[in-house]
Amino acid sequence: MARKPTIADVAQHAGVSRATVSFALNDRPGIAEETKARVLAAAAHLGWTPSHQARGLSLGKAGAFGLVLAREAEQIGADPFFPAFIAGVEAVIGQRGDGLMVHLTTPEQEQGVYERLAARRQVDGVLLTDLRRDDPRPPLMRELGLPAVVVGQPEWGGGLTAVSLDDEPAYADAIRRLTDLGHRRIAHVEGPQELRHAHRRRTAWEQTLRALGLPEGPVLPGGFSPEGGARATRELLTLPEPPTAIVYGNDLAAMAGLSVAQELGVRVPDQLSVVGYDDAPLTRYSYPPLASARADARGWGEAAARALDAVIALGTAAHVELPPAQFVPRASIGPAPRG
Amino acid sequence: MARKPTIADVAQHAGVSRATVSFALNDRPGIAEETKARVLAAAAHLGWTPSHQARGLSLGKAGAFGLVLAREAEQIGADPFFPAFIAGVEAVIGQRGDGLMVHLTTPEQEQGVYERLAARRQVDGVLLTDLRRDDPRPPLMRELGLPAVVVGQPEWGGGLTAVSLDDEPAYADAIRRLTDLGHRRIAHVEGPQELRHAHRRRTAWEQTLRALGLPEGPVLPGGFSPEGGARATRELLTLPEPPTAIVYGNDLAAMAGLSVAQELGVRVPDQLSVVGYDDAPLTRYSYPPLASARADARGWGEAAARALDAVIALGTAAHVELPPAQFVPRASIGPAPRG
Repeated sequence: MARKPTIADVAQHAGVSRATVSFALNDRPGIAEETKARVLAAAAHLGWTPSHQARGLSLGKAGAFGLVLAREAEQIGADPFFPAFIAGVEAVIGQRGDGLMVHLTTPEQEQGVYERLAARRQVDGVLLTDLRRDDPRPPLMRELGLPAVVVGQPEWGGGLTAVSLDDEPAYADAIRRLTDLGHRRIAHVEGPQELRHAHRRRTAWEQTLRALGLPEGPVLPGGFSPEGGARATRELLTLPEPPTAIVYGNDLAAMAGLSVAQELGVRVPDQLSVVGYDDAPLTRYSYPPLASARADARGWGEAAARALDAVIALGTAAHVELPPAQFVPRASIGPAPRG
Repeated sequence: MARKPTIADVAQHAGVSRATVSFALNDRPGIAEETKARVLAAAAHLGWTPSHQARGLSLGKAGAFGLVLAREAEQIGADPFFPAFIAGVEAVIGQRGDGLMVHLTTPEQEQGVYERLAARRQVDGVLLTDLRRDDPRPPLMRELGLPAVVVGQPEWGGGLTAVSLDDEPAYADAIRRLTDLGHRRIAHVEGPQELRHAHRRRTAWEQTLRALGLPEGPVLPGGFSPEGGARATRELLTLPEPPTAIVYGNDLAAMAGLSVAQELGVRVPDQLSVVGYDDAPLTRYSYPPLASARADARGWGEAAARALDAVIALGTAAHVELPPAQFVPRASIGPAPRG
């Protein structure tokens, strides 16, 4: 079996230095067109191809996964999910020297970003998070021939391999715990309902209350943001008959809710119980510490990266279902006030 | 001026289809070595080079910047700097379809990550954040020939182009404000001192107190983390003569400090004034809202990306100095308690 030609072989054959070969092959400025042509001819003659260089220089493999986030930077900054998820992905792909190409974009520009990633072969596959109602991405991935894994429930992905982690049990546990503590007016401050996981959390709240034979307390939009959570909490606490417990779509909204309660002189948990979702690093340092729900975002990233590896290698892979999120009770919940 | 040759020209010259040319040039499997050699020879003859394809497919341009973060995922998750900084970078490079290759690593493995990024030409340049004392990265970048910009003070970068945003004025303003309010025992909970910006914040605190003729209150490590901030605060508040004000290295440590104060029955701001740094999204929803310092992290990302563009194009660029961080007074500071 013949030895594969190296850059040194090409240099010798073309009668130039190795640096010149490298510059010519990489189309760097400062090399005469004639020299470039001679180097390329020598490379062709010897059968040298880019894949004989470091793997990342091969045009066949990008050595990267893509993560395109169509959210406001502020929202991502305050969300503990993404850094932990990214750390999990990197734990799998970093060892082999692969990277994660991150794009922050808007829902309007998102399609163009995927099209460019595919056209320029900058990534070997993509991880789809924040699935939306009628999400255009699963059909787009098929159209672009871009390997993809859905980070969410299988039914959100239109046939793509899904890696899911269920929110429902944590919500159901939180609401059962609140009813055990005597709460009957349990409100929900929901996330943006076009986001599948926000809608799923709201549905879990509804169905659990219904199963327990309790009325659905008021539900208000909180946008997964501190601003939205604060606004909704102010509205709920100034109702003629305010709720005795509020379950929020995420920790950001819940933390802002805690501060509004304190500002209005509503004591937590004596007069109001508060539950968040995400177990963000700061929640255990809120006062009182925030009851929340913990999902293994890092493990989710690892599982998603492994699934995407399988999809890239085999064209498809089985759905993966991770252990569900767990309710984390803390001092922000207590017995319902009398009366 | 002759028209630049296209894939179609190469295909015609080699007597194969355009798809075959594309497969051969991209070293995809399923093409005979002989065909591949014929395509490469045709490409060489016509003077076709990869840059005549979509720019991202060119071996000359990766179409990406690199950001290698040697921090714990949890720390990055809670830090509002990175998402805003990344959003700023993307605002500059996203429009032309370029991406940001993010690596989460450890200080031990960081060198290998940069070496791979350079060897595989996955990025056109890198942004260096979180500069450390005796940081090995500036000399490494020169050794690797990897264009780089330092996100921090010029003296941290060993001659690399730096894009800086000064912390000092905000710290000095905060301390002057506290002394105007009668505080004389002003403690500092510092970030990891091997980080240049953490050390700079500590130095700003020291120098401002000295300039005002005040004793340096105790300084304790807070590690930029909620855990570290909570531990340091507990220690400070149980001193025989506790400080009347604490200035923290960042908001995370300060938020945890607020909760420890509440837990110990120390009223903020009546008995203790608290100042953070970063103006994280949640700080205005802490109770009481946290006085902090605001830096334009998004603008910093934009400026750093533009500087890196210049370094890539020209080999070097002038340092850039952005408007300094601004002190943001809020209800967590008040007059020093009497006695």
